[in-house]
Amino acid sequence: MFFASDNWAGAHPAIAESLVREASGYASAYGTSDLDRRIESEFNTIFEREVSVFFVGTGTAANSLALASVARAGGVTFCHFDAHVNADEGGAPEYLTHASRLYPVEGENGKLDPEALKTAVSRFDVPSVHQGRPMAITMTQATEAGTIYTLDEIAEIGIIAKSRRLPLHMDGARFANALVALDCTPAEMTWKRGVDILSFGATKNGCWCAEAIVFFNPEMAEEMPYIRKRSAQLFSKTRFVSAQLDAYLKDGLWLDLARHANQVADRLRAGLSASNRARLAWNTDSNEVFAVVGRDAAKAAEAQGAKFYEWLPPRENPHLVGENEVLIRLVTSFASTDEDVDRFLELL
Amino acid sequence: MFFASDNWAGAHPAIAESLVREASGYASAYGTSDLDRRIESEFNTIFEREVSVFFVGTGTAANSLALASVARAGGVTFCHFDAHVNADEGGAPEYLTHASRLYPVEGENGKLDPEALKTAVSRFDVPSVHQGRPMAITMTQATEAGTIYTLDEIAEIGIIAKSRRLPLHMDGARFANALVALDCTPAEMTWKRGVDILSFGATKNGCWCAEAIVFFNPEMAEEMPYIRKRSAQLFSKTRFVSAQLDAYLKDGLWLDLARHANQVADRLRAGLSASNRARLAWNTDSNEVFAVVGRDAAKAAEAQGAKFYEWLPPRENPHLVGENEVLIRLVTSFASTDEDVDRFLELL
Amino acid sequence: MFFASDNWAGAHPAIAESLVREASGYASAYGTSDLDRRIESEFNTIFEREVSVFFVGTGTAANSLALASVARAGGVTFCHFDAHVNADEGGAPEYLTHASRLYPVEGENGKLDPEALKTAVSRFDVPSVHQGRPMAITMTQATEAGTIYTLDEIAEIGIIAKSRRLPLHMDGARFANALVALDCTPAEMTWKRGVDILSFGATKNGCWCAEAIVFFNPEMAEEMPYIRKRSAQLFSKTRFVSAQLDAYLKDGLWLDLARHANQVADRLRAGLSASNRARLAWNTDSNEVFAVVGRDAAKAAEAQGAKFYEWLPPRENPHLVGENEVLIRLVTSFASTDEDVDRFLELL
Amino acid sequence: MFFASDNWAGAHPAIAESLVREASGYASAYGTSDLDRRIESEFNTIFEREVSVFFVGTGTAANSLALASVARAGGVTFCHFDAHVNADEGGAPEYLTHASRLYPVEGENGKLDPEALKTAVSRFDVPSVHQGRPMAITMTQATEAGTIYTLDEIAEIGIIAKSRRLPLHMDGARFANALVALDCTPAEMTWKRGVDILSFGATKNGCWCAEAIVFFNPEMAEEMPYIRKRSAQLFSKTRFVSAQLDAYLKDGLWLDLARHANQVADRLRAGLSASNRARLAWNTDSNEVFAVVGRDAAKAAEAQGAKFYEWLPPRENPHLVGENEVLIRLVTSFASTDEDVDRFLELL
Repeated sequence: MFFASDNWAGAHPAIAESLVREASGYASAYGTSDLDRRIESEFNTIFEREVSVFFVGTGTAANSLALASVARAGGVTFCHFDAHVNADEGGAPEYLTHASRLYPVEGENGKLDPEALKTAVSRFDVPSVHQGRPMAITMTQATEAGTIYTLDEIAEIGIIAKSRRLPLHMDGARFANALVALDCTPAEMTWKRGVDILSFGATKNGCWCAEAIVFFNPEMAEEMPYIRKRSAQLFSKTRFVSAQLDAYLKDGLWLDLARHANQVADRLRAGLSASNRARLAWNTDSNEVFAVVGRDAAKAAEAQGAKFYEWLPPRENPHLVGENEVLIRLVTSFASTDEDVDRFLELL
Repeated sequence: MFFASDNWAGAHPAIAESLVREASGYASAYGTSDLDRRIESEFNTIFEREVSVFFVGTGTAANSLALASVARAGGVTFCHFDAHVNADEGGAPEYLTHASRLYPVEGENGKLDPEALKTAVSRFDVPSVHQGRPMAITMTQATEAGTIYTLDEIAEIGIIAKSRRLPLHMDGARFANALVALDCTPAEMTWKRGVDILSFGATKNGCWCAEAIVFFNPEMAEEMPYIRKRSAQLFSKTRFVSAQLDAYLKDGLWLDLARHANQVADRLRAGLSASNRARLAWNTDSNEVFAVVGRDAAKAAEAQGAKFYEWLPPRENPHLVGENEVLIRLVTSFASTDEDVDRFLELL
Repeated sequence: MFFASDNWAGAHPAIAESLVREASGYASAYGTSDLDRRIESEFNTIFEREVSVFFVGTGTAANSLALASVARAGGVTFCHFDAHVNADEGGAPEYLTHASRLYPVEGENGKLDPEALKTAVSRFDVPSVHQGRPMAITMTQATEAGTIYTLDEIAEIGIIAKSRRLPLHMDGARFANALVALDCTPAEMTWKRGVDILSFGATKNGCWCAEAIVFFNPEMAEEMPYIRKRSAQLFSKTRFVSAQLDAYLKDGLWLDLARHANQVADRLRAGLSASNRARLAWNTDSNEVFAVVGRDAAKAAEAQGAKFYEWLPPRENPHLVGENEVLIRLVTSFASTDEDVDRFLELL
Repeated sequence: MFFASDNWAGAHPAIAESLVREASGYASAYGTSDLDRRIESEFNTIFEREVSVFFVGTGTAANSLALASVARAGGVTFCHFDAHVNADEGGAPEYLTHASRLYPVEGENGKLDPEALKTAVSRFDVPSVHQGRPMAITMTQATEAGTIYTLDEIAEIGIIAKSRRLPLHMDGARFANALVALDCTPAEMTWKRGVDILSFGATKNGCWCAEAIVFFNPEMAEEMPYIRKRSAQLFSKTRFVSAQLDAYLKDGLWLDLARHANQVADRLRAGLSASNRARLAWNTDSNEVFAVVGRDAAKAAEAQGAKFYEWLPPRENPHLVGENEVLIRLVTSFASTDEDVDRFLELL
């Protein structure tokens, strides 16, 4: 009953085995090996166009360096108030962009509200060195609230970005979970809807440590080799990332793992909806489930070994949680089982 | 005949297998799992005192964040001119210390010359905001030139550091190779000689990706959790580093691997010394060997598949290399074999 | 009728003359001259305790370096959403604190709401490297909205700061205007109410270029000499700042100038209140006046040479301004005259 | 006998008076006033082409922001070892370029040695993220050693820069002194010889506080407004800089002042050469004179009120100074007099 986070799971056996398989032999370092090249080109296939790919060590690094690639003096990036970059990355996005700023925008259920976004961007319409100037928009798919932007919603943000000539970044820490939920292609969920740069996360979905920054327009990536090195994110034995992604991407394993996590979450959602001891806090479509449960029930479940985090009520709905209730977040992963869910629901 | 770098090797089988072993099950993230704790405490044992340990993604990150922990406005760190921080880290040590400066000091064969170091530090004796102020000394063991500071030499640098109240950092990217060459304890090669902070490198010596910053005085590490996060170096599934180090440190595997690499290097050194087609450029004691060979011989060896890098002659001895000669660097690793060496020597 | 900003005025004659008077002769540079020392000690007198004073070039520099003096990894500074540091300094507070973050807090009429502030700070109660950690609170006196914190209100913020062990910074770009409005001593408006660091602005109130950072606890300023130099804010001929402040502080000139500006603003407030063509947007007590006027009237006044800025309605009161109306900001200064006001009112 | 530095002098009366003259009346702030515009266009005239000009507060700021305008990840700027940026700016050039690096190059008497410069640049010929990449060359005219690059020497550096597509920056803290010594036009000493960006210093030559960054190709300056604001170097009452420069540039005052300072230095040079108690350390052509004098004589002169700094012997000539001797630096300024010199020579 480990629902604390998808990063509490380890690695999928196929991925770990791939590391064993690639352990012997020599390969040139710093991203220049044949395997590295092959995996990079696999991204071209996945995204149906020539892309530029950069492996980095953490999701925070992926987001931060994606923004660093478009950073400029006085730059402001628009993000959702609860976006990971704004709420959970310890200031790395600012630090690794030499102090560009994040401008938090509201929106229900973790999604950027297009009108609020337009209003925020338009505050910078009159050029002013005092205010600074827009430099990027970043959105999270799936969001921190477990929700998923529809393709139309992505396109809407994409149009706002294009109309302002702002690059659009997508934090895809849970990219695969969103993808299988929308049942669309990676291309459809990204550049075909206006996304310019993607943080492609694989760690949460069954890898040990595999994050990539994907530029859909390779010209935008020209500075990246130096940016990555300067931020100490260039691994020497890059092969160990490529080996993970080799197994991850082979035969659609990544989609299977995400599908599994989402399905276990579906079971959880169904069970919570049916329960009279709990209710869904809001609808989610990914592997994250938010529920309001009695404080006692939550404690009891924890006492029995269930792992999850208590969560702050959303700013737009502070009265969501009753007096003796708590809001909890439950995250499933490739490793979660139906049994975990059933036992947890029983406990509640 | 892969002598280009020790980071061209993959991972030792025991280390890769450990990743498989730890792949299943759940563990709390961001360095808080039982395994993480156990490995951290193992460092206490290895260094015979309570230390504070921080895993990071790259050797560049280890060095940069070690310096970040002592960074201050106007700060200057003294290093050897050819030190990795100064020559090969793409500006990361400066960037991740928000622009502290490196002050290169000369010294033969990659070692800081104590007198030159004292002269350099003493240039800052009169406090001056214009000049800046000393903030650290960093030394590399084994050095980039393959040489090794004796314990007395480390102590000498340690005394200079102490006399100026400067923290002393050791870049231990090849820590194990130096350790077995000196046949001493980790404690003797570090804090007992005045070292305050160590970049403990394991990647080059048989891990996939395992670097740690070790503070011998845990009080000096108080800011580190925030510094590491801000620099995007906090892995979520830290377990994957701990799992590597678990196998690496078990039963002295790490020392065996380093010993092996050094012995293969010894064979290489002996063969080159005996050769009339090549000569050692200078004496080394670690797994790095520098040789002067005829340009034609080098090309021929490369044509036969030997991998190595041509190197720039040292600044203190620009005439080391004759007209039709080249200086080459040969690095052995845990994966190198005597056969590799013999074949290479034959080719020359 | 120049009401665009108090920085559209030049310098008071006494201040300009002081520059002539000090132009001849020699004085040691970089803040070490007798005059520099004398002015610094004058701050001790003004604030009734030993303080540490640092001259810098701009108000933005004063605020940014004040925060730099308390910056730390993952640091977050709480400020009002409309505070100058957040809205008008082009990212300098972040850049010069190597990417610490600002956390905007709401509050009516430009003042930090104590409850909102407590809520914001308490979001960081559980230590977390992901979220970052509080590092300072900054308040503006007088505020950007022309309002003034009462002594009790300052004390209330001061208590919140102390209870969290957070340094409290006051942006005093219009310090004198607030001081004379409250009719209290500099000490009462600052350290006696919990303020730790003050940006003491003199430029807007009749100097050419004279800004100072005042530390009420000199120990907190130990790093400042290096911080200031690193940010290129150490003037060589510091004398030119001291000479301005010499005249500024002599015989209470600074208070007279602020009193004058406030009185002219009073006249403006009275006139606008009495007018049936305009109304005060909200009450202010300093030299800034905000009025809602008909769009046509505003245009007409501008056509006749009146200078002022149109302003965005406050976020907490977006419907303040009717359809054919505009919100305008009118700022008086030491150089403003009653005639200016009367002519302007007439025009409306 | 104030020879400590040209920044110990105050301001020329004409410049101080200009501040009085411009003190009254209103002018739009932040560099947009008529006077600001007029002075900016005067730079076009002086340099015989359309230039882009940015006023900043200090020479350190001018140098740092000039480099910031061309900063990029992994960037390395080549400078003379003793250049002000490298030796005397407290790390500001690195800090305000978010940690680009300086690469010190040797050269006699403060001048970049072209061969050493080529060697240094060529170390980066093989593109490498590890090493970083060249981003600029900076030279100082007049140099810190009081010497002056001839026009041919500037051209030689300019050709190296162009051949590597590197922008060439000139630190002109003592620009006027060099100009009158060479008896050439500003254009000849800058862009006609390959200089792209100039730090135009006026403070040392009779202003209070007036430094400008001049871009000879305005396109290179597009980011500058944001860069300057972000670094807190945008004055509100810019008029106070323009007013100084108005008097400074009018009727060639700036050249007269520099000529005077140089002539007084000539008298000093002649006197020292003729003396049997002192000797010139090396030839200089600007307002800086370096002399070797007996330690006792130096002390005696100081006791009589002479002000100067003892200097470190140059690295290329450490034995310049005998046992009982000291190397001293003597700087003249617009305010120095022949009487000062004669009295000083007498004292020796």
